[in-house]
Amino acid sequence: MPNLRDITDQPLIRVWDGVAARTLEGERITLALVELDPDAVVPEHRHPNEQLGMVIRGTVHFRIGTEERTFGPGGTWRILANEPHEVRVGPEGAQVIDIFSPVREDWHRLPVLPSRPPRWP
Amino acid sequence: MPNLRDITDQPLIRVWDGVAARTLEGERITLALVELDPDAVVPEHRHPNEQLGMVIRGTVHFRIGTEERTFGPGGTWRILANEPHEVRVGPEGAQVIDIFSPVREDWHRLPVLPSRPPRWP
Repeated sequence: MPNLRDITDQPLIRVWDGVAARTLEGERITLALVELDPDAVVPEHRHPNEQLGMVIRGTVHFRIGTEERTFGPGGTWRILANEPHEVRVGPEGAQVIDIFSPVREDWHRLPVLPSRPPRWP
Repeated sequence: MPNLRDITDQPLIRVWDGVAARTLEGERITLALVELDPDAVVPEHRHPNEQLGMVIRGTVHFRIGTEERTFGPGGTWRILANEPHEVRVGPEGAQVIDIFSPVREDWHRLPVLPSRPPRWP
Protein backbone atom coordinates (compact mmCIF):
# COMPACT_ATOMS: atom_id res chain seq x y z
CA MET A 1 0.00 0.00 0.00
CA PRO A 2 1.48 3.39 -0.92
CA ASN A 3 2.38 5.73 1.91
CA LEU A 4 1.70 8.84 -0.21
CA ARG A 5 -1.91 9.06 -1.32
CA ASP A 6 -4.77 11.47 -1.97
CA ILE A 7 -7.34 10.91 0.75
CA THR A 8 -10.08 11.62 -1.80
CA ASP A 9 -9.12 8.34 -3.56
CA GLN A 10 -10.15 6.36 -0.47
CA PRO A 11 -13.57 4.71 -0.22
CA LEU A 12 -16.29 6.67 1.55
CA ILE A 13 -17.70 4.92 4.61
CA ARG A 14 -20.88 5.62 6.53
CA VAL A 15 -20.15 6.49 10.17
CA TRP A 16 -23.49 7.91 11.32
CA ASP A 17 -26.65 9.04 9.61
CA GLY A 18 -25.50 12.10 7.60
CA VAL A 19 -21.83 11.51 8.49
CA ALA A 20 -19.39 9.87 6.05
CA ALA A 21 -15.60 9.57 6.10
CA ARG A 22 -12.54 8.73 4.04
CA THR A 23 -9.74 7.30 6.18
CA LEU A 24 -6.03 6.63 6.26
CA GLU A 25 -4.63 4.17 8.78
CA GLY A 26 -1.20 3.66 10.28
CA GLU A 27 -0.21 1.23 13.01
CA ARG A 28 -1.13 3.62 15.83
CA ILE A 29 -3.31 6.31 14.22
CA THR A 30 -6.47 6.55 12.10
CA LEU A 31 -6.87 9.88 10.23
CA ALA A 32 -10.37 10.56 8.89
CA LEU A 33 -11.60 13.32 6.59
CA VAL A 34 -15.24 13.54 7.59
CA GLU A 35 -18.17 15.04 5.68
CA LEU A 36 -21.11 16.06 7.86
CA ASP A 37 -24.45 16.92 6.29
CA PRO A 38 -26.23 20.18 7.20
CA ASP A 39 -27.85 19.90 10.64
CA ALA A 40 -26.56 16.34 11.14
CA VAL A 41 -26.40 15.14 14.75
CA VAL A 42 -23.82 12.71 16.12
CA PRO A 43 -25.55 11.43 19.26
CA GLU A 44 -23.62 11.14 22.51
CA HIS A 45 -21.25 8.21 22.42
CA ARG A 46 -17.84 7.15 23.71
CA HIS A 47 -15.00 4.85 22.64
CA PRO A 48 -11.72 3.68 24.10
CA ASN A 49 -9.79 5.43 21.30
CA GLU A 50 -8.46 8.90 22.10
CA GLN A 51 -9.82 11.38 19.52
CA LEU A 52 -8.49 14.77 18.44
CA GLY A 53 -9.95 16.75 15.57
CA MET A 54 -10.31 20.08 13.79
CA VAL A 55 -12.87 21.84 11.61
CA ILE A 56 -11.72 22.39 8.01
CA ARG A 57 -14.88 24.02 6.67
CA GLY A 58 -18.33 24.84 8.04
CA THR A 59 -19.40 25.02 11.68
CA VAL A 60 -20.06 22.44 14.39
CA HIS A 61 -21.35 22.60 17.93
CA PHE A 62 -19.34 20.21 20.09
CA ARG A 63 -19.97 18.91 23.57
CA ILE A 64 -17.48 16.89 25.61
CA GLY A 65 -18.89 16.02 29.02
CA THR A 66 -20.18 19.38 30.32
CA GLU A 67 -17.95 21.51 28.06
CA GLU A 68 -19.61 23.02 24.95
CA ARG A 69 -18.56 25.25 22.08
CA THR A 70 -19.57 26.21 18.56
CA PHE A 71 -16.79 26.81 16.12
CA GLY A 72 -15.66 27.07 12.53
CA PRO A 73 -12.36 26.31 10.75
CA GLY A 74 -9.48 25.87 13.19
CA GLY A 75 -11.78 24.83 16.05
CA THR A 76 -10.46 21.68 17.78
CA TRP A 77 -11.56 18.95 20.18
CA ARG A 78 -9.58 16.72 22.48
CA ILE A 79 -11.46 13.67 23.69
CA LEU A 80 -9.55 11.33 25.97
CA ALA A 81 -10.42 7.64 26.08
CA ASN A 82 -14.05 6.88 26.98
CA GLU A 83 -15.16 10.52 27.38
CA PRO A 84 -18.77 10.99 26.23
CA HIS A 85 -19.18 13.51 23.41
CA GLU A 86 -21.72 14.67 20.85
CA VAL A 87 -21.79 16.97 17.80
CA ARG A 88 -24.45 19.13 16.13
CA VAL A 89 -23.61 20.39 12.67
CA GLY A 90 -24.43 23.88 11.40
CA PRO A 91 -26.93 24.59 8.62
CA GLU A 92 -24.24 24.66 5.90
CA GLY A 93 -22.73 21.27 6.86
CA ALA A 94 -19.06 20.77 7.72
CA GLN A 95 -15.88 18.99 6.75
CA VAL A 96 -13.58 18.08 9.64
CA ILE A 97 -10.61 15.88 10.39
CA ASP A 98 -10.81 13.33 13.18
CA ILE A 99 -7.78 11.46 14.47
CA PHE A 100 -7.87 8.38 16.67
CA SER A 101 -5.35 6.32 18.60
CA PRO A 102 -5.34 3.39 18.71
CA VAL A 103 -6.70 2.84 15.19
CA ARG A 104 -10.47 2.50 14.72
CA GLU A 105 -10.53 -1.22 13.96
CA ASP A 106 -14.30 -1.18 14.50
CA TRP A 107 -14.56 1.15 11.47
CA HIS A 108 -13.27 -1.66 9.21
CA ARG A 109 -16.77 -3.13 9.46
CA LEU A 110 -18.64 0.07 8.48
CA PRO A 111 -20.55 0.06 5.18
CA VAL A 112 -18.97 1.59 2.08
CA LEU A 113 -21.16 4.24 0.43
CA PRO A 114 -21.59 4.78 -3.32
CA SER A 115 -18.74 6.86 -4.71
CA ARG A 116 -19.34 10.62 -4.82
CA PRO A 117 -17.13 13.69 -5.33
CA PRO A 118 -15.43 14.96 -2.17
CA ARG A 119 -16.92 18.13 -0.67
CA TRP A 120 -13.42 19.25 0.24
CA PRO A 121 -10.87 20.01 -1.21
CA MET B 1 -7.01 23.00 30.15
CA PRO B 2 -10.12 23.23 27.94
CA ASN B 3 -10.78 20.35 25.55
CA LEU B 4 -12.48 22.65 23.01
CA ARG B 5 -10.12 25.29 21.65
CA ASP B 6 -9.20 27.23 18.52
CA ILE B 7 -5.84 25.97 17.39
CA THR B 8 -4.96 29.50 16.26
CA ASP B 9 -4.92 30.54 19.96
CA GLN B 10 -1.99 28.20 20.61
CA PRO B 11 1.59 29.49 20.67
CA LEU B 12 3.55 29.20 17.45
CA ILE B 13 6.70 27.08 17.77
CA ARG B 14 9.68 26.84 15.44
CA VAL B 15 10.12 23.28 14.12
CA TRP B 16 12.59 23.83 11.28
CA ASP B 17 13.94 26.81 9.40
CA GLY B 18 10.83 28.15 7.59
CA VAL B 19 8.52 25.68 9.36
CA ALA B 20 6.35 26.70 12.35
CA ALA B 21 3.49 24.93 14.10
CA ARG B 22 0.61 25.34 16.54
CA THR B 23 -0.13 22.13 18.41
CA LEU B 24 -2.76 20.33 20.44
CA GLU B 25 -1.76 17.39 22.60
CA GLY B 26 -3.67 14.47 24.06
CA GLU B 27 -2.29 11.53 25.99
CA ARG B 28 -1.53 9.51 22.84
CA ILE B 29 -1.64 12.02 19.96
CA THR B 30 -0.08 15.35 19.00
CA LEU B 31 -2.00 17.29 16.31
CA ALA B 32 -0.04 20.10 14.64
CA LEU B 33 -1.24 22.78 12.23
CA VAL B 34 1.99 23.55 10.37
CA GLU B 35 2.89 26.64 8.32
CA LEU B 36 5.63 26.05 5.76
CA ASP B 37 7.28 29.00 4.03
CA PRO B 38 7.56 29.09 0.23
CA ASP B 39 10.35 26.76 -0.96
CA ALA B 40 11.15 25.62 2.60
CA VAL B 41 12.99 22.30 2.89
CA VAL B 42 12.58 19.84 5.75
CA PRO B 43 15.78 17.79 5.49
CA GLU B 44 15.64 14.02 5.75
CA HIS B 45 15.07 12.93 9.33
CA ARG B 46 13.32 10.21 11.32
CA HIS B 47 11.68 9.80 14.70
CA PRO B 48 10.17 6.97 16.72
CA ASN B 49 6.72 8.62 16.55
CA GLU B 50 4.39 7.42 13.82
CA GLN B 51 3.34 10.40 11.66
CA LEU B 52 0.30 10.86 9.43
CA GLY B 53 -0.56 14.13 7.73
CA MET B 54 -2.51 15.99 5.05
CA VAL B 55 -2.11 19.15 2.98
CA ILE B 56 -4.70 21.83 3.78
CA ARG B 57 -3.45 24.52 1.39
CA GLY B 58 -0.52 24.90 -1.03
CA THR B 59 1.69 22.14 -2.44
CA VAL B 60 4.46 19.95 -1.03
CA HIS B 61 6.81 17.38 -2.49
CA PHE B 62 7.13 14.48 -0.06
CA ARG B 63 9.62 11.65 0.04
CA ILE B 64 9.35 8.62 2.35
CA GLY B 65 12.22 6.22 1.78
CA THR B 66 12.23 5.74 -2.01
CA GLU B 67 8.59 6.80 -2.50
CA GLU B 68 8.01 10.37 -3.79
CA ARG B 69 5.02 12.52 -4.70
CA THR B 70 3.98 16.12 -5.15
CA PHE B 71 0.53 17.05 -4.02
CA GLY B 72 -1.91 19.75 -2.99
CA PRO B 73 -4.89 19.79 -0.61
CA GLY B 74 -6.04 16.29 0.35
CA GLY B 75 -2.58 14.78 -0.27
CA THR B 76 -1.54 12.55 2.65
CA TRP B 77 1.51 10.83 4.10
CA ARG B 78 1.86 7.81 6.34
CA ILE B 79 5.24 7.51 8.04
CA LEU B 80 5.67 4.55 10.33
CA ALA B 81 8.12 4.73 13.25
CA ASN B 82 11.70 5.55 12.28
CA GLU B 83 11.09 5.82 8.52
CA PRO B 84 13.31 8.50 6.95
CA HIS B 85 11.38 11.28 5.18
CA GLU B 86 11.87 14.73 3.72
CA VAL B 87 9.69 17.55 2.37
CA ARG B 88 10.15 20.29 -0.22
CA VAL B 89 7.55 23.04 -0.20
CA GLY B 90 6.11 24.64 -3.34
CA PRO B 91 6.70 28.29 -4.31
CA GLU B 92 3.46 29.46 -2.69
CA GLY B 93 4.16 27.83 0.70
CA ALA B 94 1.79 25.38 2.38
CA GLN B 95 -0.31 24.75 5.46
CA VAL B 96 -0.60 21.11 6.51
CA ILE B 97 -1.68 19.02 9.46
CA ASP B 98 0.73 16.55 11.01
CA ILE B 99 -0.32 13.98 13.57
CA PHE B 100 2.01 11.97 15.77
CA SER B 101 1.68 9.05 18.15
CA PRO B 102 3.08 8.85 20.74
CA VAL B 103 3.02 12.58 21.50
CA ARG B 104 6.01 14.72 20.43
CA GLU B 105 7.46 15.32 23.90
CA ASP B 106 10.65 16.55 22.23
CA TRP B 107 8.61 19.44 20.76
CA HIS B 108 7.97 20.79 24.29
CA ARG B 109 11.52 22.11 24.16
CA LEU B 110 11.16 23.91 20.80
CA PRO B 111 11.41 27.72 20.82
CA VAL B 112 8.22 29.82 20.81
CA LEU B 113 8.13 32.36 17.96
CA PRO B 114 6.76 35.90 18.18
CA SER B 115 2.97 35.93 17.76
CA ARG B 116 1.70 36.40 14.19
CA PRO B 117 -1.66 35.94 12.47
CA PRO B 118 -2.37 32.39 11.27
CA ARG B 119 -2.00 31.81 7.52
CA TRP B 120 -4.97 29.43 7.70
CA PRO B 121 -7.90 29.62 8.34
